[in-house]
Amino acid sequence: MSDIICAISTPPGMGAIAVIRLSGEGCIALTDTFFRSPSGKKLEDVARNTVHFGQIYLNDELLDEVLVTVFRAPHSFTGEDIVEISCHGSLYIQQKIIETILQAGARMAQAGEFTRRAFGNGKFDLSQAEAVADLIASSSKAAHRVAMNQMRGGFAQQLAVLRDALLQFVSLIELELDFSEEDVEFANREKLLELATKIETDISHLIQSFQLGNAIKNGIPVAIIGETNAGKSTLLNLLLNEEKAIVSEIHGTTRDVIEDTVNIQGIVFRLIDTAGIRETNDAIETMGIERTFKKIEQASIVLWMIDLTTPIDQIERMAQSLASSLADKKVIMLFNKSDLVSSDEIQSKLGVFPNLKAERLPISAKKNINFDQLQKLLVDAANFPEIGEQDIIVTNLRHYEALKNAQAAIHRVIDGLNSGITGDFLSQDIRECMFYLGEITGQITTDEILGSIFSKFCIGK
Amino acid sequence: MSDIICAISTPPGMGAIAVIRLSGEGCIALTDTFFRSPSGKKLEDVARNTVHFGQIYLNDELLDEVLVTVFRAPHSFTGEDIVEISCHGSLYIQQKIIETILQAGARMAQAGEFTRRAFGNGKFDLSQAEAVADLIASSSKAAHRVAMNQMRGGFAQQLAVLRDALLQFVSLIELELDFSEEDVEFANREKLLELATKIETDISHLIQSFQLGNAIKNGIPVAIIGETNAGKSTLLNLLLNEEKAIVSEIHGTTRDVIEDTVNIQGIVFRLIDTAGIRETNDAIETMGIERTFKKIEQASIVLWMIDLTTPIDQIERMAQSLASSLADKKVIMLFNKSDLVSSDEIQSKLGVFPNLKAERLPISAKKNINFDQLQKLLVDAANFPEIGEQDIIVTNLRHYEALKNAQAAIHRVIDGLNSGITGDFLSQDIRECMFYLGEITGQITTDEILGSIFSKFCIGK
Repeated sequence: MSDIICAISTPPGMGAIAVIRLSGEGCIALTDTFFRSPSGKKLEDVARNTVHFGQIYLNDELLDEVLVTVFRAPHSFTGEDIVEISCHGSLYIQQKIIETILQAGARMAQAGEFTRRAFGNGKFDLSQAEAVADLIASSSKAAHRVAMNQMRGGFAQQLAVLRDALLQFVSLIELELDFSEEDVEFANREKLLELATKIETDISHLIQSFQLGNAIKNGIPVAIIGETNAGKSTLLNLLLNEEKAIVSEIHGTTRDVIEDTVNIQGIVFRLIDTAGIRETNDAIETMGIERTFKKIEQASIVLWMIDLTTPIDQIERMAQSLASSLADKKVIMLFNKSDLVSSDEIQSKLGVFPNLKAERLPISAKKNINFDQLQKLLVDAANFPEIGEQDIIVTNLRHYEALKNAQAAIHRVIDGLNSGITGDFLSQDIRECMFYLGEITGQITTDEILGSIFSKFCIGK
Repeated sequence: MSDIICAISTPPGMGAIAVIRLSGEGCIALTDTFFRSPSGKKLEDVARNTVHFGQIYLNDELLDEVLVTVFRAPHSFTGEDIVEISCHGSLYIQQKIIETILQAGARMAQAGEFTRRAFGNGKFDLSQAEAVADLIASSSKAAHRVAMNQMRGGFAQQLAVLRDALLQFVSLIELELDFSEEDVEFANREKLLELATKIETDISHLIQSFQLGNAIKNGIPVAIIGETNAGKSTLLNLLLNEEKAIVSEIHGTTRDVIEDTVNIQGIVFRLIDTAGIRETNDAIETMGIERTFKKIEQASIVLWMIDLTTPIDQIERMAQSLASSLADKKVIMLFNKSDLVSSDEIQSKLGVFPNLKAERLPISAKKNINFDQLQKLLVDAANFPEIGEQDIIVTNLRHYEALKNAQAAIHRVIDGLNSGITGDFLSQDIRECMFYLGEITGQITTDEILGSIFSKFCIGK
């Protein structure tokens, strides 16, 4: 585990500077083989947490003038010796310095290997390590807050509390088993039931938080539906461009990254575009409607674009076809092209199909009319709670599944207590519940699980 | 000049870490307003060149756990106090930390403003500052070496030597002017002519190096010409993919950057694709040929793709039309589709139009036959000298133009000495020559020139 690894830790590409990181026993001495300080001093001799100017040589070729920071075990991110080389951000230089380090005897780090070492050295538990990756990927206030809380150990603490309670529980039961011939009952069954119920409630809360956690991490799914020429793409572009304009004030945001998600007031919405529905010969095209139904199923919020210039009976027919699939969704009816029709006509069409519970807003996607109100309606529909520094929200599918398994086990414990099963069966179910909680924090783990977790990290972390 | 500036210095995008840099008097105290160390210590009190762990807060929101490095004037890149914040590389965090710094009272740095301050504080001369940008942009060994030599001051030193010589020269002449009524001649005219000629030679060498410098910086222009279906795009893809495969071993290289340049054995070739020439009714399409002539003009090397399955007389006609425009170019005739014809046929076609001086190579772009030899021919045609650590090569158009002006002035001095003009005219021309050399190093400069130079830098440097 402690050979020397290296990687470029800054984002890929060209910039003013780039940072290359080495970790592992001997990495400071290794750096001394290709780093030359003007004063001739060796990095091996410097104090920890200090920065040093000097030059990097590949064989006899001067590659760059750099700053090198030295960290010493255990006072570092990985818990090992670390060297950070801050070089000029040319692709050529980055590549050549990596070449130099490899030639000196290090190897390229795998994705997430620095964090995996930090976990291995007890710097934090597995849920915290996973939060590091989430933190790096976080693109909204809520995602950032949840990842930060998790990284700082809130989730790990709550799990530790649960495990402690379970341990106390199982100890009592197992003590009984030791004295089984004497038929004593150290563990008061009523107290046990109370404790199990409490644990079940806590686990359930965490499980319930996953729906919110998932929306935070991946965005709230919003389907944009409507007839072929209702203006769906114009709206999509409007939403995406608005975003682009906001984020591109700070360099570092590319269109690639935001893909088809949009961040409004710190909330990420994942936009699901749909093919237009077409009404042919006064009959709504079945195929289009069915495809749309599928998209609606995936969404929490539905933006239904309606062309105000279409006849009201056509809008009504469409509403009728959609009504049942929209029933349990937050629906926002957008009456588009409001600049093309009279306000009387808008008013009458806004009232179409009153049975459908929906927000109704006249807009013009093209003329950018009422776009602010649309954004407000989206934020309201998201109904996103403010997330405090203490709030624990499960965002990770792996955690969610482990919690579901833990929940099933604690349910068996409760059922067992109610039906009066013997201590050895109880003990087995409690231990299983502890096992699944331990999977989350990494107390129980395998190389395979670790491999799959850390492979999702970026290189250099 | 000394207000506090900040910028993201690492490449744009998401990565394991990002570095945000502040520079200017008071930037350490400013960082203390939003940075909290676990031990409660203030950055104002720490030693220079040390790294500190802590948290960044925007108002009361915890943004990130970071490492902060403190540099103190004048021991820093800019010569001012500098703070470098190494944070998690999430776009959200980068953006929010910038927001925090701006709120605390700093402002966003303009492109190249850190380097401009370093220049302003006498850390290096203007040619060295410009080399920083070149170093960051360098994508080949030669470009890197030239920029590194320039950054380390080789060019600046040579210019200083020239200016010293000119100063000595003009001092003698101006001393004569002071004593003009006495008609003395302190400056031996023969010695002066010798000195002027020496200076002219040195300037001419620098000017001559620009052709190489330009090829190093922007790549050697290579035109790929040939008939419509001769396989030009397949070759282009082959060249570009080869490059891509090499560079993508190291993360951080994107297809965007390499665009249509290709790096073979450290030499950058700029590929100029051309529309295919079409032969219609046994007459070569005039338009196509003329467009191709234009592209050939821009190139140093011409890769002429010939389809081996076309009749030999057609190849001959094409050679005839191209011959005059290829006369002063390095030409490589690539006889493509060698897998489709017999070796006898290849041999006979290789000898086509013997008057044309060219390398001749049968290849198959599709089957990747003889691709190594093609690369070797390209490298040989480039005829690229090895660049030593002492070699000074002008790569900057601004420097080239200043040198041309300095050369014109020194020519006037030499002519003046030969025709025996008076000291005051000589003095004027020598001072003009000094002026242009001073423009390169930044001894003579204006805000406008500086603005135009540094605007080409990336933000954060």
